[in-house]
Amino acid sequence: MSLVVQKYGGTSVADATCISNVARRVVETRKAGNDVVVVVSAMGQTTDDLIALATQVSSDPSGREMDMLLTAGERISMALLAMAIRDLGVEAASLTGSQAGILTDAAHGEARITAIRGDRVRQYLDEGLVVIVAGFQGVDPASKDVTTLGRGGSDATAVAMAAALGADVCEIYTDVDGVFTADPRLVGTARKLEAVSYEDMLELAGAGAGVLMARSVEFARRYGIPVHVRSSFHDGPGTWIKEEAMEQTVITGVAHDTSEAKVTVHGVPDQPGIAARLFGALAAESVNVDMIVQNVSTAGHTDISFTVPKEHLTKARGAAEALIPELGADGVDVDQAIAKVSLVGVGMRNHPGVAADMFKVLADHAINISMISTSAIRISCIIEADRCEEAVQSLHDYYLPEQAPV
Amino acid sequence: MSLVVQKYGGTSVADATCISNVARRVVETRKAGNDVVVVVSAMGQTTDDLIALATQVSSDPSGREMDMLLTAGERISMALLAMAIRDLGVEAASLTGSQAGILTDAAHGEARITAIRGDRVRQYLDEGLVVIVAGFQGVDPASKDVTTLGRGGSDATAVAMAAALGADVCEIYTDVDGVFTADPRLVGTARKLEAVSYEDMLELAGAGAGVLMARSVEFARRYGIPVHVRSSFHDGPGTWIKEEAMEQTVITGVAHDTSEAKVTVHGVPDQPGIAARLFGALAAESVNVDMIVQNVSTAGHTDISFTVPKEHLTKARGAAEALIPELGADGVDVDQAIAKVSLVGVGMRNHPGVAADMFKVLADHAINISMISTSAIRISCIIEADRCEEAVQSLHDYYLPEQAPV
Repeated sequence: MSLVVQKYGGTSVADATCISNVARRVVETRKAGNDVVVVVSAMGQTTDDLIALATQVSSDPSGREMDMLLTAGERISMALLAMAIRDLGVEAASLTGSQAGILTDAAHGEARITAIRGDRVRQYLDEGLVVIVAGFQGVDPASKDVTTLGRGGSDATAVAMAAALGADVCEIYTDVDGVFTADPRLVGTARKLEAVSYEDMLELAGAGAGVLMARSVEFARRYGIPVHVRSSFHDGPGTWIKEEAMEQTVITGVAHDTSEAKVTVHGVPDQPGIAARLFGALAAESVNVDMIVQNVSTAGHTDISFTVPKEHLTKARGAAEALIPELGADGVDVDQAIAKVSLVGVGMRNHPGVAADMFKVLADHAINISMISTSAIRISCIIEADRCEEAVQSLHDYYLPEQAPV
Repeated sequence: MSLVVQKYGGTSVADATCISNVARRVVETRKAGNDVVVVVSAMGQTTDDLIALATQVSSDPSGREMDMLLTAGERISMALLAMAIRDLGVEAASLTGSQAGILTDAAHGEARITAIRGDRVRQYLDEGLVVIVAGFQGVDPASKDVTTLGRGGSDATAVAMAAALGADVCEIYTDVDGVFTADPRLVGTARKLEAVSYEDMLELAGAGAGVLMARSVEFARRYGIPVHVRSSFHDGPGTWIKEEAMEQTVITGVAHDTSEAKVTVHGVPDQPGIAARLFGALAAESVNVDMIVQNVSTAGHTDISFTVPKEHLTKARGAAEALIPELGADGVDVDQAIAKVSLVGVGMRNHPGVAADMFKVLADHAINISMISTSAIRISCIIEADRCEEAVQSLHDYYLPEQAPV
C-alpha cells in the first residue's frame, strides 16, 4: 500500500461540480489500495472576494485578521470535498492547517512552515479515512494564531505534508498537463517533459515557469519527495520532478518572465560601498531584487541596473531616487517593457559554449540583450518585452527542435 | 470599569457597511471605559449559501463536515469586524469558538456548551484588546472536532461567555427594539417592556416570542447574568432580562406561535402504558413534542392529541401510524392550521382566575379552543390559525390595555 498526497488548486474545486469530480478521483485512488491525504485550496474566486470585503472595512487590514479571514476559504472547500467523498461511500475527514499540525513562524501572510506534527493525520489514516488538509494555512505555536503561507502556499503544504508523512508521491493537480520545454501558448512545438530534476525545476521556477514555486521544489528536493505535476482534467501522466531526470539533454527548457521591471541608476561614482548602500536601502524596503548588472566604469562613473517585480517598482524607484544626492549619481530610469528569457538545464554544466550559442541565436534575430545573468545551470537575458515570443520560439527551435516522429 | 459582552446577529453584520457600524458601536463602548467582548454571527445569508453548497455535493452531508463548513461563516464576520475596529484605532483580535475555549459535547449541529476555558479571552482583555468571539461554534475536547450549537447558538455563546467571564451585562443586539407585550406586527398597541424576569422570559420564549431562545435565558438565569435585548439600529434602551422585573403586573405579555402542527391519535384503548409507548416511539425519532392532551375516556377508548414543530410532522405522523396496529387505535389525524396563544406572567401565581378570564375573552370572540396547557406562570391555548391575530389582539386589549397618556 502506497501513501499518496494529492493537491488540488482553486480552479480544480471552483464549484460543486468540480468538487464532485475531484471526489471521484480521490475515491479512485483510495479504491486502488492507496492511503490518501488531499491538500485543497480555496474555491476559485473565494480568496479574491474575501480580500475585497477586507478592503471595504479597513484601509490597512491587520495581518492576523487577514489570515483569520482568508483561512475561511479552505475551510469551505475542504469540508465540501470531505462530504462529497463520503457521498461516494468512502470515509473522509477534513482538518484545518492547525488541526493537521502545520506549525509556522509568525509572519502573517507569508509564513514559513517550521514543523509538521502529523499525529492526527496518521491516526485518521490508520482508521482508514481519507484525510483532507487545508492548504495555504498553519498555526504559529507561540501565539496560537492562524497564519497563511502566501503565494504557492498550498503546494508548499502538500510537499511538506508528504515529507512529514514519508509519502511515496506528492501529486500536484493543476490546469496544465505538466512542465513544458517552453510555454505552449508561445511555442507550438513545446513538449511536455516526462521528468525533470529538482535542480532544473528550481531554476525553471525562478525563471518564470509558473507551474510550481521554488519554495515547494526546494522542500521536495531536501526531503527527496517525488512530485508528480499533472492535469486535474484527465488521467494522463504529467511531469515527474525527482532526483534524476530520465532525459539527459543539455537544455531542459526555455522559460520566460514578463513580470519584472528594470531600474537603472546612472552616473554612479565608481567607489567601494556604493552598491552595498543602494541594495541595503532596497532590502530595508523589502524590495525583491532579481538580476543586478554593473557596467564597466567610464571616467570614474558607472551605471547600475537591476530588476524587480513590477509590484515593487514604486518602492524601488523611491528608494533609489532618495539615494541620488548621497551617492552623487546622475538619475534613475525605469523600464517596464522588458522580458527575461532563460535557458535551464543541468546538462549545461558539462557543455561549455551554451551561453555563446544563446547570444548568437538572439543576435541572428536582431534581438538586443540589455542584461545577462548566469548560474551553473541557467542563463538569463533581459530583452525588450515585445521580442519575448520570438526569442523564446527561436531558442526553443535551436535547442529543443521538434522531434522526428517515430 | 465594567465588562460588557455584546452579541450581534447576522442582520447586524450583513455587509461591509453594517460591519463598520457595529465597529463604531463597539469602539464607543470601549472608549466609555469598558472591557468589551463581542460575539458575532455569520453575515446575513452566508449560512444559507453554505448549506446550499453542501446539498449540491452530498445527499446527506456528514454532521462533522457540515459543522466544519458552517463555522467558516463566523470566521469571516469576526475577522472583518476585528479589522474594522482596528481601523478606528482600537486594538482588537478575533477568536474562533475553539480558540475562545468554548467546549461542547459531540452532538454536531446541536451541540451543548459544557464548559468555557476563558484564559485566552481574559489574557487579551488584560492586554487591552477588544475580543471578538465567533458565535454558534465550539469544540468537542474528546475528538478535537469543531461543533455548532444549533438554533440560537450565538445568543447561547454570548450568555455563556458572559457567565464564564463574570460580565456585568450581556447585550443582545437584534433587529427589534426589545421584548414586547405582544408581537407589534399583530398588535398596534403592544408596548416594549423595560424589564422582564428570567422566568417570564423563559415562558415567553417557549410560547413563541422569538427574540431570545429559552436555552440562553435559562443560562442567564442560572448564572444571574443581566441580559439587555436592544436594537442594533439606534442607541435607545431595549428590554432588560434579570432576576426581578421592575413592573409587577399580572400578565407580562401575550405570545403566539404558528410554527406547530397538531397530531391526534383516535380511538386509543384507555389502558396503562399506551401513552408511554406512543411518546417513547416519538422520542426515539427525536420528535420534539410540545403540548399533550388526552381526552376523557368514552366507552374504554380515548383520543390523544399533541403538538410538534411543523418540520417534525412527517416523522411524528409516521411514528404514530406505525403504532396503530400495536395500540389498537382507529387512526391518525394531523392539522397544520393551528396557532398557540399564550398569556405569560409571574404575577399570575398570586392571581387565580386568569385562565377563566382568558377562556371567556376567547369565547366572547367565538374563538374555539382545541387544546389547553398551563404552567404556574403561563396559560396556552391551541386555536385555529386564522383566528390567531384576533385572539392575540383581544387578549392584549383585555390584559394590557393601552396606557393613558401622562
